[in-house]
Amino acid sequence: MCGVSGCYLLKENEAGVYNYLILHANQHRGQESAGICVYDGLRLVGKKGMGLVTEVFDRPDLRKLSGPVGIGHVRYSTTGASELVNAQPFKVGYSKGELALAHNGDIVNSEELRRELVSDGHAFVSETDSEVIARLLAVALTETDDMFEAFEDVMERLVGSYSLTVITSHGDLIAVRDPWGFRPLCLGWDERGFFVSSETVGLDVLGVEERRELERGEVVWIREGDVESKVVRRERKAVCMFEFVYFARPDSIIEGRCVYECRKCMGKRLAEEAPVECDLVVPVPDSGRTAALGYAESLGVPMEEGLIKNRYVGRTFIMPEQEERVRSIRVKLNPIREVIKGCSLAVVDDSIVRGNTSRQIVEMLRDAGAREVHMRIASPPVVSPCYYGIDMATKEELIAADLDVPEICEKISADSLAYLSLEGLVESIRLKKRELCVGCLTGEYPTPVPE
Amino acid sequence: MCGVSGCYLLKENEAGVYNYLILHANQHRGQESAGICVYDGLRLVGKKGMGLVTEVFDRPDLRKLSGPVGIGHVRYSTTGASELVNAQPFKVGYSKGELALAHNGDIVNSEELRRELVSDGHAFVSETDSEVIARLLAVALTETDDMFEAFEDVMERLVGSYSLTVITSHGDLIAVRDPWGFRPLCLGWDERGFFVSSETVGLDVLGVEERRELERGEVVWIREGDVESKVVRRERKAVCMFEFVYFARPDSIIEGRCVYECRKCMGKRLAEEAPVECDLVVPVPDSGRTAALGYAESLGVPMEEGLIKNRYVGRTFIMPEQEERVRSIRVKLNPIREVIKGCSLAVVDDSIVRGNTSRQIVEMLRDAGAREVHMRIASPPVVSPCYYGIDMATKEELIAADLDVPEICEKISADSLAYLSLEGLVESIRLKKRELCVGCLTGEYPTPVPE
Amino acid sequence: MCGVSGCYLLKENEAGVYNYLILHANQHRGQESAGICVYDGLRLVGKKGMGLVTEVFDRPDLRKLSGPVGIGHVRYSTTGASELVNAQPFKVGYSKGELALAHNGDIVNSEELRRELVSDGHAFVSETDSEVIARLLAVALTETDDMFEAFEDVMERLVGSYSLTVITSHGDLIAVRDPWGFRPLCLGWDERGFFVSSETVGLDVLGVEERRELERGEVVWIREGDVESKVVRRERKAVCMFEFVYFARPDSIIEGRCVYECRKCMGKRLAEEAPVECDLVVPVPDSGRTAALGYAESLGVPMEEGLIKNRYVGRTFIMPEQEERVRSIRVKLNPIREVIKGCSLAVVDDSIVRGNTSRQIVEMLRDAGAREVHMRIASPPVVSPCYYGIDMATKEELIAADLDVPEICEKISADSLAYLSLEGLVESIRLKKRELCVGCLTGEYPTPVPE
Amino acid sequence: MCGVSGCYLLKENEAGVYNYLILHANQHRGQESAGICVYDGLRLVGKKGMGLVTEVFDRPDLRKLSGPVGIGHVRYSTTGASELVNAQPFKVGYSKGELALAHNGDIVNSEELRRELVSDGHAFVSETDSEVIARLLAVALTETDDMFEAFEDVMERLVGSYSLTVITSHGDLIAVRDPWGFRPLCLGWDERGFFVSSETVGLDVLGVEERRELERGEVVWIREGDVESKVVRRERKAVCMFEFVYFARPDSIIEGRCVYECRKCMGKRLAEEAPVECDLVVPVPDSGRTAALGYAESLGVPMEEGLIKNRYVGRTFIMPEQEERVRSIRVKLNPIREVIKGCSLAVVDDSIVRGNTSRQIVEMLRDAGAREVHMRIASPPVVSPCYYGIDMATKEELIAADLDVPEICEKISADSLAYLSLEGLVESIRLKKRELCVGCLTGEYPTPVPE
Repeated sequence: MCGVSGCYLLKENEAGVYNYLILHANQHRGQESAGICVYDGLRLVGKKGMGLVTEVFDRPDLRKLSGPVGIGHVRYSTTGASELVNAQPFKVGYSKGELALAHNGDIVNSEELRRELVSDGHAFVSETDSEVIARLLAVALTETDDMFEAFEDVMERLVGSYSLTVITSHGDLIAVRDPWGFRPLCLGWDERGFFVSSETVGLDVLGVEERRELERGEVVWIREGDVESKVVRRERKAVCMFEFVYFARPDSIIEGRCVYECRKCMGKRLAEEAPVECDLVVPVPDSGRTAALGYAESLGVPMEEGLIKNRYVGRTFIMPEQEERVRSIRVKLNPIREVIKGCSLAVVDDSIVRGNTSRQIVEMLRDAGAREVHMRIASPPVVSPCYYGIDMATKEELIAADLDVPEICEKISADSLAYLSLEGLVESIRLKKRELCVGCLTGEYPTPVPE
Repeated sequence: MCGVSGCYLLKENEAGVYNYLILHANQHRGQESAGICVYDGLRLVGKKGMGLVTEVFDRPDLRKLSGPVGIGHVRYSTTGASELVNAQPFKVGYSKGELALAHNGDIVNSEELRRELVSDGHAFVSETDSEVIARLLAVALTETDDMFEAFEDVMERLVGSYSLTVITSHGDLIAVRDPWGFRPLCLGWDERGFFVSSETVGLDVLGVEERRELERGEVVWIREGDVESKVVRRERKAVCMFEFVYFARPDSIIEGRCVYECRKCMGKRLAEEAPVECDLVVPVPDSGRTAALGYAESLGVPMEEGLIKNRYVGRTFIMPEQEERVRSIRVKLNPIREVIKGCSLAVVDDSIVRGNTSRQIVEMLRDAGAREVHMRIASPPVVSPCYYGIDMATKEELIAADLDVPEICEKISADSLAYLSLEGLVESIRLKKRELCVGCLTGEYPTPVPE
Repeated sequence: MCGVSGCYLLKENEAGVYNYLILHANQHRGQESAGICVYDGLRLVGKKGMGLVTEVFDRPDLRKLSGPVGIGHVRYSTTGASELVNAQPFKVGYSKGELALAHNGDIVNSEELRRELVSDGHAFVSETDSEVIARLLAVALTETDDMFEAFEDVMERLVGSYSLTVITSHGDLIAVRDPWGFRPLCLGWDERGFFVSSETVGLDVLGVEERRELERGEVVWIREGDVESKVVRRERKAVCMFEFVYFARPDSIIEGRCVYECRKCMGKRLAEEAPVECDLVVPVPDSGRTAALGYAESLGVPMEEGLIKNRYVGRTFIMPEQEERVRSIRVKLNPIREVIKGCSLAVVDDSIVRGNTSRQIVEMLRDAGAREVHMRIASPPVVSPCYYGIDMATKEELIAADLDVPEICEKISADSLAYLSLEGLVESIRLKKRELCVGCLTGEYPTPVPE
Repeated sequence: MCGVSGCYLLKENEAGVYNYLILHANQHRGQESAGICVYDGLRLVGKKGMGLVTEVFDRPDLRKLSGPVGIGHVRYSTTGASELVNAQPFKVGYSKGELALAHNGDIVNSEELRRELVSDGHAFVSETDSEVIARLLAVALTETDDMFEAFEDVMERLVGSYSLTVITSHGDLIAVRDPWGFRPLCLGWDERGFFVSSETVGLDVLGVEERRELERGEVVWIREGDVESKVVRRERKAVCMFEFVYFARPDSIIEGRCVYECRKCMGKRLAEEAPVECDLVVPVPDSGRTAALGYAESLGVPMEEGLIKNRYVGRTFIMPEQEERVRSIRVKLNPIREVIKGCSLAVVDDSIVRGNTSRQIVEMLRDAGAREVHMRIASPPVVSPCYYGIDMATKEELIAADLDVPEICEKISADSLAYLSLEGLVESIRLKKRELCVGCLTGEYPTPVPE
């Protein structure tokens, strides 16, 4: 998964700083690499590197990234290995100058498009979908100077999810959301200029009040201080339900819904669908906390933070080579024996993917004295892979692909296990089922997908 | 503040890895520098660096830190500038070989001791208290080979807080807690060997079940596979109450008390002492969460996570130079308007030091639509500095040093403000008042302090 | 300027190590960045970085660069800023797989070619000529699998200098010299395999005895263990005379000529053309030493190393900001007063470009007590820029572009000044004048050049 | 071996920059680590790191090293492992403030002194002699404020070589040369202030004209803008003859002798003592060049640069693991076949230590076609180790310790071999034999040495 940013300043030159702040607020969307590219009044200059936004950029870097317009990107790789060459924004020179592009999403037909381009003699330098999009756009812009027309061409060919920010060496900023609206993207403005962020939290941090989400299929083109917008192509709405369940920050607004409230609703609804007699509700921190609050509140049972998360587990933690030396889950989560000893627990998490973590949590809680451990999952079973940007594992690895709920319950050694129903999920989000992408829950996808 | 670690392995050579894991669990005690020093069977070899444990050590480092015995340290500077020369463990050659020392605490009379040592011709290479302790120990060890005798000398001279781990080039591991017991220190053991950690969470991560906290004034000396222990000097007990309030991890056990439960008690007691009519209880994450749970539970009002913390704010975040561009608190905390709009809030935090953050939180919540904001602080006002290791600000900066509660309330623009009483705090911890150090709350310290 | 390398191993997998050694021997051709790319049996993997070969690669890097075939590059930028994105080898994915390319030279019509490619919709990621060549080659290879045919197309379009090494993800190695033969390139072989190096010193270091220089316009294609070769296009010979004068290592062989002997000849010939009565011949180290030996020998005057060079001056030396504090030449060159005091000197250098250094040397020698300073330059005046890869300054900066010899002599304050004649130069090299590129000496270039 | 620097500025604050320049000129004396420490008007601040001066310091570092007084150090380890903790200047806090010390030399009785200090309870943080000296000085300064008196004490105890620069947090600069004068040290001055450098080349680069070498046993104490000097202790003169033969830069002046001229004399004298019928004289670059010039001149045979040195061989070159792949000498030196083929050569080098390099050079020259190879060494055989700072190998490794000249000649496969006589060496330097340390040539040392 990834996050994108953009800004178009009317009076200032701190595009680097603004993108830094927006990316920092979207950091949860990708911790592998970060990049910023700005138009400095003449050309596009950028920096990208492996690591967190705060690791990649220091103060001198931000001073150098000076200019009125810029875009940024944080990345968790879905296509392309985790290497610097695959970091974004992706910058190219094309017929009319330079352009740089930041992409959140996954192009389903990218291999096919790549093959077509190389058979026309194009040569690729990275393994990313972003380069495919950039080259399609460069080709389209040889025919027209009109961004809307160019994106009409590009969007006709692209199948998949893409929220994009683009800048050109003419100083234009373009923001694009794919025709299905898989991934969020929002636009804010005030007297300082225009700001683009994957999630609304990127506007919050700047204190930008005026804002709206992009429509699906919309292209926003900002140039010479003016905004033009056009919905260039529209397919059925297919907002990723996982943004609500897990991926987005709880303080973000997506499709007009407050993610925190959606999650709390999922917890409440789960309590209605699958109540359990227990002494305590315990969230799996941090992802299960909001649903747990709702679950506990609805059930009328106290919630306790019986599992504590080590805040410092991250990319660079070195797990000892002989694994038996330490149970890996203990590095990340620690149970509080004094809280849970002798208690029957309802443990609430947002989802189960492979099942390993859930199994380890149950075992750890029992070791710490829990009398019973009932797992409650605030979303339906994941039975099929995601083709639109969430790195969810292959089908073989998905525990719910082959096993039904009682089998999973046995596998993770819980006393009981219940998932939220699809209806429960949909109603918690308050969109229609046909407006969401629930492909990973049903195997039915809003676009053609590879065999 | 700092954290220390140690291990004495009976069959393995992975002292580097074990200290890495213990330090990682104690990372919240110091994020500025990290170091590990091991006895490799012949001599002491170590590495230290600026940054988090995971930033300082990579896999090749850990392979090089091979040996049966080792100690480690994470540091947040209280004495000495934030420079590599002040990082620990501090290693010296002395009359009987080499020793290395890791120190958590603050020596009140270190300047005086340093002056005495230099007037005897000693020369210092760092600005740390740890070097003072190491040199005193080196002097003492010229007279005796008995660690207990040596520490009798050393402890007679040291005034202040010190939890120590020490290794020698004879392969001995020593753990020491000062005669007042200001800072925690615990010892664990199983068939793999002996393990020392500032907090019990460092033993949890290793799955070490057998454990005890060191007595105040106790020296534990492990050599040739055997443990000897002696209480070498004893003063009145003076456990830092701030470890319970804020500093320690909630899943740690200190003086036999579960920190999480103490905090929850503080919240409940605060609800009894200072209830308020409100729609919601909102914790200041993460430090106020446990007390907020207790406060809400006791009050019978729902708790909501109305403030969301950005997990990625850390040492290296670059605040823009023109501060007006972004209100700094928004980088770290973001309110959820949908949750708090129109509500009367009881906002629970663990403590107030300077008051800036509280003021910004109140303002931010009002901007986000809160009708009323009542601040509830789960510890008494801090009126005096800490001389024992917590970098709490000088007296001039402490908002409660000069202002009374109504004045502070006005200053932070809250609708009401209440602190937990000292009695309430003490009873929540379930130690006697005379067993705790509450110097920063009363100005009465368990040892002489500088003018 | 740049240097290129390549190897095709028949039994080993150490392509990384071999390229490292060849590049190290060619390091004088470019100190700005270095890169190696190898075919690992499946795909192309590489590393490039800013700095010297020994700074870019450590032992783990070389272990990772494991495979039977590889190429390398050292760079001093002529086109494109000094940034990592412009470092080589340049790797692209194309219709038949991947290819990587290393280029020494300068393409005169690259802007035009780039424009043509982008008007076909191609998008560029770097500012280098190398990317132009790589994309032309990728286009050509969509039409044919035959490397010779592909290079026929490519060479028809390229005007300028290019010695190339290329590898493909089929494991082929290709070496190419442009139709004029501007830059050197040689091929060696023994039982270990085939080796390509800009200069013969790259083969010397490996102990490869069997060798030949590539013909101008020749393409050498090594695949499946066999070498095929074809002269694909031929223009008039135009070997850069500056390789002999200054650029190449003295122990290299170019066009069958030993560079050291050519330089010594230039010195001897200069003594015939422009003798001077003097006490000592002093070389400007290291570039003027060989010619000075010849000059002294021919004149029968002793040579003394009256100027000593600091070996550690390099890219990263920081010149103090207030320049008056230190005369910059003194950081690099130091005169030996005891040797030159009271003497009349003939100071021999290889060339004068801007004249600043010569002026400073004359002044420094006078300050150190030289009675007379006669400058003798072992090549003719540089009056026109180089379009083929030597970064020689713009025409405005060339001291000989506007001034005649007596004027230059006055400007550099020498007692006399003489240059080697063009005939003298040509005869010292023992090629015909029409076989050399002497464009920078005459303004007459072997190809069309930009206005 | 090491180099030291110091400066005391009267009007400026660029002590960091001046030390950088002096160290850079002394870089040949040590390439392993570099450090600068300045008095910033209040306290001592410094930086040290592994690598060359230009690698350790960047522009922001030099800006931070701002102050009127400072010292510096470049190091090649003789005592203490090659680790940062052993880098210099060595800074300590002592009874009167702080002092920092930079040391060139080797203390013969350092182990004994270290033992005495630790038995008094001192604890050491490094393995260097410099720490021993710093601690002795710190002890002495507890008794007296007079630097001369303090150094009287210190010098009474130190046996061995030490050229020192010292600064204190009172802003004093002290320069000291040991009572034997083993290592060079010079003082310069002009209107900018006072400058100290191991070799005179460090003053040349600053354009400092007024200068003198320190006397042996002299302490120069600069404070409050005034210089005081005193010879505190004097032993027999014992200047290291190897400084003249190999170690110092040819453009330095030591004991009033121009090193270049001494070396040329050695070559001439060698020609008288050991002439040979030959076609060419070939120097081993760069160390043998000056002597070769003298040898050739005296013999009346032309000198040719038949061996070319790769300028980029340094600390970080990675020799391939399978050595048979490349003869290591070829990475560093390359013969020019065209020059030497069929010729009888006199190859001149400055010295032979282990003999490996000489053997490889002879073999390489024969392979390149030399008819005869006569080795001529411009100093006598090294038969005994150096205890005063030159890392010359242990006695077992010295080829001349066990073998006589004909045996060495056979071992290195030369057609003939001759060394300069001790008398010849002494007369070339124009000091008396009893004024030089020739311990490594005779086994008779000017001080007691370890068994």
